[in-house]
Amino acid sequence: MGDLKHIVVAKFKEGVNVDEIVKGMEKLVSDVEAVKSFEWGHDVESNAMLTQGYTHVFSMAFRNSDDLTAYLGHPSHVAFSTTFLEAIEKILLFDFPAVVIKASA
Amino acid sequence: MGDLKHIVVAKFKEGVNVDEIVKGMEKLVSDVEAVKSFEWGHDVESNAMLTQGYTHVFSMAFRNSDDLTAYLGHPSHVAFSTTFLEAIEKILLFDFPAVVIKASA
Repeated sequence: MGDLKHIVVAKFKEGVNVDEIVKGMEKLVSDVEAVKSFEWGHDVESNAMLTQGYTHVFSMAFRNSDDLTAYLGHPSHVAFSTTFLEAIEKILLFDFPAVVIKASA
Repeated sequence: MGDLKHIVVAKFKEGVNVDEIVKGMEKLVSDVEAVKSFEWGHDVESNAMLTQGYTHVFSMAFRNSDDLTAYLGHPSHVAFSTTFLEAIEKILLFDFPAVVIKASA
């Protein structure tokens, strides 16, 4: 069994400075030790039927649920969440233990 | 810049043997050299407001867009796609170059 993954799929409101939000998230995960890994991306296919308007994916990994809980309760996360939730038009959130079939080299 | 990520979010039709579909996908990515890494998971939060009914996330990484193209055109992928698309009720697909902020140890 792999890490616990925490994946956020988001569409931002029009007029939002997405770069600023992303920078805030980058700072957040750098600050919080409990976050094992973090990567994000901006969809480049832009096939509206397949993305349903969602544009960004944020993917974090945690060693275990205690670390995820520590992250969610961290003051930096609590503060950032307010900013983030104000900036999004819609969001999807998935938490799952990753089943690793082919490991990254 | 990190790998090219290919993330599928799916909700399966009722009555579908999801284990069988997942096993088919595991075999597929093991067969196709172009797939650099693959992991998947079944959401454990089950917060319908946050998942919109989607239950599974499949996450692949490719070294570059040539490898992704090779995967998509691979006969094993083409064959499996038919099975997969018949089994799902709805799907989201995201392709993006991963921006790695905190690398997995």
